[in-house]
Amino acid sequence: MELERIRTTEAARHIGERVKLAGWLHALRRMGGVNFLIVRDGFGTFQAVLGDISPLNDCQAESVLEVEGIVVAEAQAPGGIELRECSARVLVPVTESPPLVISKREIKASLDVFLDHAPVGLRHPTRRALFRLQAGLMAAFRMYLTAQGFTEIQTPKLVGGATESGANVFAVDYFGKKAYLAQSPQFYKQIMVGVFERVFEVGPVFRAEPHATVRHLNEYVSLDVEMGFIRDHHDVMAVLNSLLAAMLDHMQQHHADDLALVGAIMPDVPTPIPEIDFREGQALIAQHTDRDPRGEPDLAPADEKWLGDYAHARWGSDFVFVTGYPLEKRPFYTMPAPHDPTVTNGFDLLFRGTELVTGGQRIHLYQQLIQAARAKGIAPESIAGYTEAFRYGMPPHGGFAIGLERFVMQMVRLSNLREAALFPRDIRRLSP
Amino acid sequence: MELERIRTTEAARHIGERVKLAGWLHALRRMGGVNFLIVRDGFGTFQAVLGDISPLNDCQAESVLEVEGIVVAEAQAPGGIELRECSARVLVPVTESPPLVISKREIKASLDVFLDHAPVGLRHPTRRALFRLQAGLMAAFRMYLTAQGFTEIQTPKLVGGATESGANVFAVDYFGKKAYLAQSPQFYKQIMVGVFERVFEVGPVFRAEPHATVRHLNEYVSLDVEMGFIRDHHDVMAVLNSLLAAMLDHMQQHHADDLALVGAIMPDVPTPIPEIDFREGQALIAQHTDRDPRGEPDLAPADEKWLGDYAHARWGSDFVFVTGYPLEKRPFYTMPAPHDPTVTNGFDLLFRGTELVTGGQRIHLYQQLIQAARAKGIAPESIAGYTEAFRYGMPPHGGFAIGLERFVMQMVRLSNLREAALFPRDIRRLSP
Repeated sequence: MELERIRTTEAARHIGERVKLAGWLHALRRMGGVNFLIVRDGFGTFQAVLGDISPLNDCQAESVLEVEGIVVAEAQAPGGIELRECSARVLVPVTESPPLVISKREIKASLDVFLDHAPVGLRHPTRRALFRLQAGLMAAFRMYLTAQGFTEIQTPKLVGGATESGANVFAVDYFGKKAYLAQSPQFYKQIMVGVFERVFEVGPVFRAEPHATVRHLNEYVSLDVEMGFIRDHHDVMAVLNSLLAAMLDHMQQHHADDLALVGAIMPDVPTPIPEIDFREGQALIAQHTDRDPRGEPDLAPADEKWLGDYAHARWGSDFVFVTGYPLEKRPFYTMPAPHDPTVTNGFDLLFRGTELVTGGQRIHLYQQLIQAARAKGIAPESIAGYTEAFRYGMPPHGGFAIGLERFVMQMVRLSNLREAALFPRDIRRLSP
Repeated sequence: MELERIRTTEAARHIGERVKLAGWLHALRRMGGVNFLIVRDGFGTFQAVLGDISPLNDCQAESVLEVEGIVVAEAQAPGGIELRECSARVLVPVTESPPLVISKREIKASLDVFLDHAPVGLRHPTRRALFRLQAGLMAAFRMYLTAQGFTEIQTPKLVGGATESGANVFAVDYFGKKAYLAQSPQFYKQIMVGVFERVFEVGPVFRAEPHATVRHLNEYVSLDVEMGFIRDHHDVMAVLNSLLAAMLDHMQQHHADDLALVGAIMPDVPTPIPEIDFREGQALIAQHTDRDPRGEPDLAPADEKWLGDYAHARWGSDFVFVTGYPLEKRPFYTMPAPHDPTVTNGFDLLFRGTELVTGGQRIHLYQQLIQAARAKGIAPESIAGYTEAFRYGMPPHGGFAIGLERFVMQMVRLSNLREAALFPRDIRRLSP
């Protein structure tokens, strides 16, 4: 009778039994008469001790194999168990040496070479851990919000009419008409507040920004949230605060091994996360550094870095909210602050000195929204589909968007956002 | 002290208490001295009995309100409870009559008018139920697959090089280069089988098909699955079979109210789902109808309908697999059948006579894949990023894609796929 294949991660439950594993030839170490074969499947790796490796002659790394043997406890083996009395069978031989060595602790290749060969490079155990963490963050995001009465939505990425910023959009030829790729689900998630009150979406967004930095991509995954019946942006920030705590807690509960593998040092999420006013933050920077950002309408990356360090030093927090952003740099739908209409009820959340989340309270009154659009040079008729929701009753509402790749990057302290996307898109890179 | 707002769906737990609700003015029925106000929030509707409605003077439907009152059991009220001794406060007045009446059981508008005014129309209780069902299907899909060791991935929608079909793609100007919108995550999910073995993705796909039918959209949500270490396509079909059973079971467990609201008659998922060979199916049609599709390389919609009816009559099943599709109409990466290389290990799953799922076993050997691409006129160098995964070891694998909107359409028996998308995209429609 043929053995049923088991996963490498199930082997520990079969000590003393004969089992069949299948996977890739991760590494083969020849030590005279004894050979150590590391088999990698989709879940983990496992060591098999082989005498006869003639079936593996001419097989390069990444060949696909089946190995049968008896599971034996062996204190010195990786994971404390190994496979003995083995026979190996090649399912798919690889005849060329792979372009990247993925059996070493680190991949010795430049980021560009790694990305060119992502189909192989992503098989490295720490790369796999990184993207299991990404999957875990998405799952935790949805789980928390669903439990809080949010409904998941899927909104179109091909859009006509005006976009929320009007700039940096990718144009698409849509049956002879001009369409754009959505820069965010902003308009749609607000419309859906009129339907479900509380909504979220996980999906791609597209930014045709022509610059190349270590912290921008032209396509990324946005975790979007929008909610109605708020008092102001602080209600939104409170939901974000609890959401982040739940997401990071989920990671520690369910992904401890992967976090260890990538060497993540997990932050605590204080409640509440400390908050700095935009202008007060600028004043602090002017006071304590040799730069003076006062009067600038936005924070430069160096300002965000400094405020992140400040929050860590003062409150021991890896997170800090910045509120009171000037109206000038925020999108037209942002609610002005009631006490000072030159600033907004918008916020950013910095995580270790980098913007992770942008959000705020939105304008909910129809006439005010129309005027705000005009003030930014947007013709109201070009966004009539969006404003119809407001014409027929929208409650006070707000929301935010978390950049998924940014979250992974900052959690794991990657030096380049491209490492946090499976197949990143930048100004030069469209494949693989 | 101000009352904390509760949801309409929480009111039944507060009988005898004074509560505050907030939501939209769904309907107001004036009956002499007594008035019945139906308040709709993001979760449900609730009846409030009002004497004085002067605060609501000049308020049209969809105005945003707060209502305070005492929750009272009342057998004849909708849901068996209502709010009495009420006071109402208008948060956001609506001054124009909405373009659609959404307080009646049915929306009396053509589909085009409904879609033009989706921001209002989607607030109708049965429309909301439909999209809660859609969210439930996504959640059930992910839950089942995660429990089976599948990892969620997010792959790029902007792609360079060749696409899997080469036709019907939307072109994008990507910083002066030509990019395309992904027609499916096919290449990427196969590459990721080399990484995680078992993967799934939920995301938008784009088809520039210039025809307008009731069962096609130009952008839709694809539920994609791919898995390694299979024997053949029957292993894939078995996973799909269990997945569908789990998804439909989840809907009955967790969405019974919404299913009732939309009048869905739920199918059972037999195990195994019956299977018809493509050519045998054609022969049956030729034998029992006045059409003769024998020799055609694909099934026409009428053929699918007939086979769906046949499966229901013969096996009492709403689902039927069709296997043995000719090579001619399947994509180049489809595994030819070992017994007859003119047909494939590809399959379709018909649900109530309409294609719901396409899938199959894929070619996993590098040289065979290169030759298969050439045979379909695809230059191998244009898909080098994809084929690299195969050059360095891919196990036998296969997968499938479920159209989310199709699933909802067939489950609820909608007559037009556009009803199953929040903001559908077709050859004429790009907004809202």
